[in-house]
Amino acid sequence: MLTRTGANTPEAEAIVELMAETGRKARAAARPLAIASPEVKTAALLAMADCIERRKAEILQANEQDMTNGAAAGMTPALLDRLKLDDKRISGIADSIRVIADLADPVGQVIAEWDRPNGLHIERVRTPLGVIGVIYESRPNVTADAGALCLKSGNAVILRGGSDSVHSSRAIHAALSEGLELAGLPRDAIQLVSTTDRSAVGEMLKGLDGNLDVIIPRGGKSLVARVQAEARVPVFAHLEGLCHVYIDGSADLNLARKIVVNAKMRRTGVCGSAETLLVDRLIAPTYLTPLLNDLVEAGCEIRGDEQVTKLYGKAKVATEADWSTEYLDAIISVKLVDGIEGALDHINRYSSHHTEAVIAEDESVVERFFNEIDSAILLHNASTQFADGGEFGMGAEIGIATGKMHARGPVGVEQLTSFKYLVRGTGQIRP
Amino acid sequence: MLTRTGANTPEAEAIVELMAETGRKARAAARPLAIASPEVKTAALLAMADCIERRKAEILQANEQDMTNGAAAGMTPALLDRLKLDDKRISGIADSIRVIADLADPVGQVIAEWDRPNGLHIERVRTPLGVIGVIYESRPNVTADAGALCLKSGNAVILRGGSDSVHSSRAIHAALSEGLELAGLPRDAIQLVSTTDRSAVGEMLKGLDGNLDVIIPRGGKSLVARVQAEARVPVFAHLEGLCHVYIDGSADLNLARKIVVNAKMRRTGVCGSAETLLVDRLIAPTYLTPLLNDLVEAGCEIRGDEQVTKLYGKAKVATEADWSTEYLDAIISVKLVDGIEGALDHINRYSSHHTEAVIAEDESVVERFFNEIDSAILLHNASTQFADGGEFGMGAEIGIATGKMHARGPVGVEQLTSFKYLVRGTGQIRP
Repeated sequence: MLTRTGANTPEAEAIVELMAETGRKARAAARPLAIASPEVKTAALLAMADCIERRKAEILQANEQDMTNGAAAGMTPALLDRLKLDDKRISGIADSIRVIADLADPVGQVIAEWDRPNGLHIERVRTPLGVIGVIYESRPNVTADAGALCLKSGNAVILRGGSDSVHSSRAIHAALSEGLELAGLPRDAIQLVSTTDRSAVGEMLKGLDGNLDVIIPRGGKSLVARVQAEARVPVFAHLEGLCHVYIDGSADLNLARKIVVNAKMRRTGVCGSAETLLVDRLIAPTYLTPLLNDLVEAGCEIRGDEQVTKLYGKAKVATEADWSTEYLDAIISVKLVDGIEGALDHINRYSSHHTEAVIAEDESVVERFFNEIDSAILLHNASTQFADGGEFGMGAEIGIATGKMHARGPVGVEQLTSFKYLVRGTGQIRP
Repeated sequence: MLTRTGANTPEAEAIVELMAETGRKARAAARPLAIASPEVKTAALLAMADCIERRKAEILQANEQDMTNGAAAGMTPALLDRLKLDDKRISGIADSIRVIADLADPVGQVIAEWDRPNGLHIERVRTPLGVIGVIYESRPNVTADAGALCLKSGNAVILRGGSDSVHSSRAIHAALSEGLELAGLPRDAIQLVSTTDRSAVGEMLKGLDGNLDVIIPRGGKSLVARVQAEARVPVFAHLEGLCHVYIDGSADLNLARKIVVNAKMRRTGVCGSAETLLVDRLIAPTYLTPLLNDLVEAGCEIRGDEQVTKLYGKAKVATEADWSTEYLDAIISVKLVDGIEGALDHINRYSSHHTEAVIAEDESVVERFFNEIDSAILLHNASTQFADGGEFGMGAEIGIATGKMHARGPVGVEQLTSFKYLVRGTGQIRP
């Protein structure tokens, strides 16, 4: 493998030049894309969806090659299942693009407008960001989802998929390119990095000579951590979703039971699944056993603090590391806390600033939870698994961000835009 | 001077530790500040303004020391004038803080809210960003303005002023600290870096171990360029304001004359002053001479392209470098272009993405100008000198940003906030 820092071999220099050229082409495509009409973008998206279905056989064949290589390389069954495409999944990919085609076009939307005493009329309107880089791992559907979301928001995109899914991604990308062309948009609006050499990622992190405006990593923690540490351009991402559920002394037990099981067990591998349950010490004697029984019956392992293990025999002992662990599995850490104050202390210490829920009937507790925790999403009497752009009504999301700059929470088409001010006057000059 | 990279001398290590400690204190102050009530923040701001007026004698004395040092170091009269405080200027600083005290508190404002079909109610509310770093040069009033704007928006701030104004800044900062204390807010909410060693800036650019969320540089181009190149945290800034005015063939001549003189000559040293005038070739024979006569009469030097120099004898010849030069002086570059198409080509090539104005009566020209130029502020039939947070109705600004992430255009208290989602349910679980 080439090192990212020293582009001193001819191969390394070729990749540096390839990526620089990719950046220049993306920037050139971004201008016509930024002023493309909503109708043209929608037409391109619908054409892409059709092309994906029409090219089903060729996509399946490409996917089979990836599957064969993956099996030979010893990929786990879970990863192979992520990688696998079939008729239904390909239709699903096409349908997702049609959903995005149907969304309201964010570009040009007036976010705010007001008049000044001197008669100037000011509008703040949405504009595309420019060029977006998406770096992802084995899921081939990201090629289509990310390409479609960036197009809808008027952005050029550079897609860098994992080498495991390279053939599938190329076949899907060919369909996207055809759709762009049919609608008269530049093919460079959606580019797929053709090399699987990892140094291409390093070039993207450096920003492609100013031709990359933001990077969105989609994948495991090590990918996201590398991107966050090394990127010289803004990043929309979450490193982990260490989500908490706090059951207050004022909570309704039945409602709490229903939410806790859903928050943890509906799907354990998603970033919005609960990892730590905090229970108000006051109600532990009566609430803890039914709450934890539900989880155990659903197949969940319990790791409790000392008092939890005393009250509930089936709980294993949690170590300090458990409070910082995103299991992404059927395991939950459980702790008794001194009411809302104790919950705030714990969450503000261990939270990944992604999503936290409070189950309570006491409104003053809810207000403190909402005001004093700085996470992207805070929920009252609802499951943490609602942390999702689709569930928020955004139509589709390219990911969830936990940073505080620009995009936070689900990143949908609106979050992929910037804005500018349009000021209309009648000859005003400044005194 | 110490190098920023090798903290290997005891002095260098002391600064690394000082700055790390400053970051930790700021982060600790940010939590109580984020939940401080609007009333408490307003009380602190009003107390600060009073303290500045009460401490006038001591601030003037400190400023005199800076002035003496500056004169001895050979500062230019213009810089000495920037540095100088007097009774009136100190009252002005106090009044600016009172204006900020009167602004609406952005924290907790509901930016958007909607209901989901499952009954979930979603609100997007403003939150503070956290800790803001402000790096500025000799103007001592920035100490008060930046401190007050960050406080109003619920952010802790680390101020790093220029060494030229160190005594003035310390005296003003003492008044701000007293105001915080009188209102019961942590003094660490507004910290002034006590060392004048430049390596302190390098530590801020590295992000103070994650304890700095954004950096705002206020000063000359070399300062901003260094911050933009080296900062490992987001930056709100503009490198330069290379603002264009385009006079379309459909323009009203009298309106154009009034605006051009104001855009260039009202104040030549501000970032919103016009640097390049583009004139539609069609109207050049009749419009150019009166437009340029006005500028010359107002004391402006004209640097024109070949055709401008032919039509207007008093114009000097512009070189290629002129189209990329922010003069910040009574000089303007002038070029004839082929209508809106030519104006778009020129501006999209040379613009600094700050502010551009179109003077036209033809609405289709205005629409193309607004749609096809990606600058933070676009104006129709108004002077570029309106590029200012106060003029936009934001009350006060900490600067103007030309980046596309998060804040763009004037950066006021709203732009110093992030947001979070608050979701209220009644027991909803995700199917």
